[in-house]
Amino acid sequence: MQLVQGFSRQRDVSFVRVSLGYWRGMVQHGRPLKQVQSPPPPDYVIAQSVEPQPILEVAKAAGLAPSELDLYGQFKAKVRLNVLERLRDAPTGRLVVVTGITPTSLGEGKSTTTVGLSQALGAHLNQRVFTCLRQPSQGPTFGIKGGAAGGGYAQVIPMEEFNLHLTGDLHAITAANNLLAAAIDARVFHESTQSDEALYRRLTAKGFSPIMLKRLQKLGIEKTDPKSLTPEEQRRFARLDIDPETIAIRRVLDTNDRFLRSVRIGLAPTERGYERLTGFDITVASEIMAILALATSLADMRERFGRIVVGHQRGTGLPITADDLGITGALTALMKDAIMPNLMQTLEATPVFVHAGPFANIAHGNSSVLADQIALKLVGADGYVITEAGFGADIGFEKFMHIKYRAAGTAPRVAVLVVTLRALAMHGAGAGVRAGAESNMVRHIENIRKFGVRCVVALNRFKDDTDAELATVIDVARRAGACDAVVASHFEHGGKGAVALAEAVVRACTASTDAQHDVPRLLYSLDMPLEEKVRIIACEVYRAARVEWTAEARRKLEKLEQLGYEKLPVCMAKTQYSFSDDPEKKGAPEGFVLPIRDIRLSAGAGFVYPLVGEIQTIPGLPTRPAFYDIDVDVETGQILGLS
Amino acid sequence: MQLVQGFSRQRDVSFVRVSLGYWRGMVQHGRPLKQVQSPPPPDYVIAQSVEPQPILEVAKAAGLAPSELDLYGQFKAKVRLNVLERLRDAPTGRLVVVTGITPTSLGEGKSTTTVGLSQALGAHLNQRVFTCLRQPSQGPTFGIKGGAAGGGYAQVIPMEEFNLHLTGDLHAITAANNLLAAAIDARVFHESTQSDEALYRRLTAKGFSPIMLKRLQKLGIEKTDPKSLTPEEQRRFARLDIDPETIAIRRVLDTNDRFLRSVRIGLAPTERGYERLTGFDITVASEIMAILALATSLADMRERFGRIVVGHQRGTGLPITADDLGITGALTALMKDAIMPNLMQTLEATPVFVHAGPFANIAHGNSSVLADQIALKLVGADGYVITEAGFGADIGFEKFMHIKYRAAGTAPRVAVLVVTLRALAMHGAGAGVRAGAESNMVRHIENIRKFGVRCVVALNRFKDDTDAELATVIDVARRAGACDAVVASHFEHGGKGAVALAEAVVRACTASTDAQHDVPRLLYSLDMPLEEKVRIIACEVYRAARVEWTAEARRKLEKLEQLGYEKLPVCMAKTQYSFSDDPEKKGAPEGFVLPIRDIRLSAGAGFVYPLVGEIQTIPGLPTRPAFYDIDVDVETGQILGLS
Repeated sequence: MQLVQGFSRQRDVSFVRVSLGYWRGMVQHGRPLKQVQSPPPPDYVIAQSVEPQPILEVAKAAGLAPSELDLYGQFKAKVRLNVLERLRDAPTGRLVVVTGITPTSLGEGKSTTTVGLSQALGAHLNQRVFTCLRQPSQGPTFGIKGGAAGGGYAQVIPMEEFNLHLTGDLHAITAANNLLAAAIDARVFHESTQSDEALYRRLTAKGFSPIMLKRLQKLGIEKTDPKSLTPEEQRRFARLDIDPETIAIRRVLDTNDRFLRSVRIGLAPTERGYERLTGFDITVASEIMAILALATSLADMRERFGRIVVGHQRGTGLPITADDLGITGALTALMKDAIMPNLMQTLEATPVFVHAGPFANIAHGNSSVLADQIALKLVGADGYVITEAGFGADIGFEKFMHIKYRAAGTAPRVAVLVVTLRALAMHGAGAGVRAGAESNMVRHIENIRKFGVRCVVALNRFKDDTDAELATVIDVARRAGACDAVVASHFEHGGKGAVALAEAVVRACTASTDAQHDVPRLLYSLDMPLEEKVRIIACEVYRAARVEWTAEARRKLEKLEQLGYEKLPVCMAKTQYSFSDDPEKKGAPEGFVLPIRDIRLSAGAGFVYPLVGEIQTIPGLPTRPAFYDIDVDVETGQILGLS
Repeated sequence: MQLVQGFSRQRDVSFVRVSLGYWRGMVQHGRPLKQVQSPPPPDYVIAQSVEPQPILEVAKAAGLAPSELDLYGQFKAKVRLNVLERLRDAPTGRLVVVTGITPTSLGEGKSTTTVGLSQALGAHLNQRVFTCLRQPSQGPTFGIKGGAAGGGYAQVIPMEEFNLHLTGDLHAITAANNLLAAAIDARVFHESTQSDEALYRRLTAKGFSPIMLKRLQKLGIEKTDPKSLTPEEQRRFARLDIDPETIAIRRVLDTNDRFLRSVRIGLAPTERGYERLTGFDITVASEIMAILALATSLADMRERFGRIVVGHQRGTGLPITADDLGITGALTALMKDAIMPNLMQTLEATPVFVHAGPFANIAHGNSSVLADQIALKLVGADGYVITEAGFGADIGFEKFMHIKYRAAGTAPRVAVLVVTLRALAMHGAGAGVRAGAESNMVRHIENIRKFGVRCVVALNRFKDDTDAELATVIDVARRAGACDAVVASHFEHGGKGAVALAEAVVRACTASTDAQHDVPRLLYSLDMPLEEKVRIIACEVYRAARVEWTAEARRKLEKLEQLGYEKLPVCMAKTQYSFSDDPEKKGAPEGFVLPIRDIRLSAGAGFVYPLVGEIQTIPGLPTRPAFYDIDVDVETGQILGLS
């Protein structure tokens, strides 16, 4: 049968020709907004005021064949990974990563800038462009934050699809993560309540499945007939003997449910007292999400799932993996559609991939490697892919380089650093931009330059900002090493408001390269000890004086090294509100001691994450949640009130 | 902007003409299987051996306009509700409900018969036919049960889509249910930790939203300016004062996670000791699911969501609803796509709606009213809609009549009662069909006749069944009041194996009506007291001697009556393995006492559900779960091992 979704090896040669025709000017890339209102109305009103292009048209203009798409309604599509095969030998475009200074709790418009810049490049400068965004958690949409599709006249549409179910990828992650969690506790329970013999007999009643043979190999048992194992081999095969205290997989929900932060499970009589304290995280904090974001193919994703460490064996302390549980294939089955990037569009009809959204705190906070890679092939040598990195550059950009770039192999040409006067004022000593208020921006610029990446500062203009203040900041930015700094007003004006920014980005991408300063480089190598990797990030990026490990963290660090995980990169779990571990330390603090309280493993995603202070992994609902405003017009089916 | 999904009022008159052309013989309805293997290979091998028709073709052949579809890939589509408007004046087809005798734990092939009968009607008898099935819970797919798309050569394809995410409706229910649950606990927490004044100020900081005005109306406060309320009015508005002991909404997951049956939540320090014992149900047990299945429009679904009782007020005992929480619109936004039925196809390319799957135990266990209604219009006066009712006829068919038929207004012409010798043997005294073994079947036939519905018995043939045994059963069935009884072998032969059954169904639907016996009727009226409704079901359908209420259940019954819920129908929560409350009582027990341990309210779905014995609302994973066999071929993307 023809594949439902996936990886047909057919190539449609005639289509390649047709799509190249598009690139040669048959279709303009994007479509400028006809008019904007001032001041801009609420986000959902703007989003619903623009008729989206049928996604099939957006896809064609982007160089995708209809056979490479799975439509999800008229305005969303999944893009099959076989497009990468068709474009294997195509040249790769220019990657631009959007990051920001240390943010306020209101956000400084990083997504909005990512979208606005794309609209400017595509619909105004007629460049080939693709935007790659993270899919937001659905939880905050109903809580405090509202949507994350950009804002004002720089948005991804339909914004209600973007902010709610999209094509179900987050739901697939919830399902996969929770199947894994349920399987762990059920296995512990069954092992605790059954004899070796009964356990082995039930496990092998249908013979050895392929994944069971993999476990036998790992155990060094070279047999394929269940009857041929010695009682000792049977016991080693059947008893994972996971220490419940070491279970590393928490359950997840894509809901802001504070009462699930810490829960005691297994209290029903049927669980016979095998109760346990655990908790729920928000879905985007799942390791399954981090894996989705870093996987380079379906096979790679499956391999990574298999490596997930779910806990450690009693006594030996050996890691027990998803492969040992026999669940790798089922996780892959649940995630096989989610691995395909989701195609949407901006208000100005430029193409957007929305794909993966790992928690920027305990994971790496960047959209998927696959979306970037497909987009880079689709835009071609002279095109632009604008991708966003979560939080400030100390977190999102550092992880973009050390984790995502390392996994994907594609370096950014330019980093766009988003700055607002509002945030600078917070980093200064109170209201207004005073001397020293730019210190935070200056340090982020310096950091980006350390990685050998050019920096363009995008100064998002708010209505009360004065020209003089803006000019000061631009001047400081240039002197600090930014190759350019420009004011942008895409929130109010759409792509038109970001044309100067787009031009600066084009210049930065195409200017001749200074081999010494403009070659992307990493600050640590994987061969260094984990402790040294942490030290380099803490001292070079955060500018801590030194790192202090708790005894518990050091014990875990040593165990990770013993178990052979010392070659992994590190993914710091730190507050986004300061370079330091203290969210109150604004500006550019230095000389502080960075405490490491704990260090954990995401073996499937392929990193360890040291915890700097408390990280909240499931938000709550405020007294007056955003859901009060959300409704559906039952006559038209339109969603109302999303911001 | 053109609606993304929903309810455009445009009618495409030319299309109506074209689609009528289809009906007049332009396109054959369905496409017989070219060949079958004997014995049949595993379900997923059969399912993947047939190339599905593009769903657009299936839709066109079924009389749907492309503008009435939202495609989800090539082989699934959602059908917009505006089709009902276009077909408002079209004649309605014949509704056939498939039910069964008291089942064994292996299932007797009810879904398979529903699909096989449809394949026979469409692809072999060239009748216009539509199949309406429930969407299965994803949990059991990875546990014991395997898939639920039918089996053998009578399946819905692609079966992996059917059994996994489909179009995300179950995920939407999980999200909506858990948002509601989170909102309840968060509200209790915020009310407990804030003064009247702070609470009111935060709730009304953005003024009164429309749903807040609705609450004011309910409280008899006719004001629209937050500043104008007296302190007493402010307190009444802001304090729902839900008694945590009465919270009626449990959280849900679509995962077989036994450790979540009973959990203590709120144990993190941030919840300041407001911990509480609660639990998770499987997603299909959510009231949101029951509402989806019974809603007749988007507006009706929204109204029902608003009526959900989430708990009772301390002191007054008054019900607090989703409307009071202000969350009705958000729930509707999460469910606005889920309300559209999902179009798929059988192995013989006849059209199928897969839509809603309320737990047959604590809810009514029938697929959606909307899917049936749309299908009945699409097939037209001479066409057939084959819809399935969960469990045995004592549960699924009784609820089909008393709850779904009452909500939908469309009576079945015929009930098909699925019977297997295997199940009859279990109801007799051991192996083989002996005297009295048919008692269970006989009673189900009698019960169906009590409702004035014609009964056709479908005897699903297994390979070791003898002709003599089958002939005996057929004879007994006819004498018991079935208008026909036929042997079917669709599992082995596809629609061809159910042609005799299909012909019997056609005869039963078209034979002249005996006004006395063949007019659908209900066994109780809504005006009767709740206790009397329960008694009628227990004594007339189950044949209990009498009903015994626990003191607790009686207390709750009285409270429901006081609160004005006495006009609702009742939805019995009883084991499916016996007419009685004891799963071990096989055959046709009588004279037993039916205990009612508890009675609960689903005010949104519109029924009360008395609990007869313990009902397990979240299954567990066995020692060797089905997930061991499930995998994805990473080269082709095909899912392997689903049964």
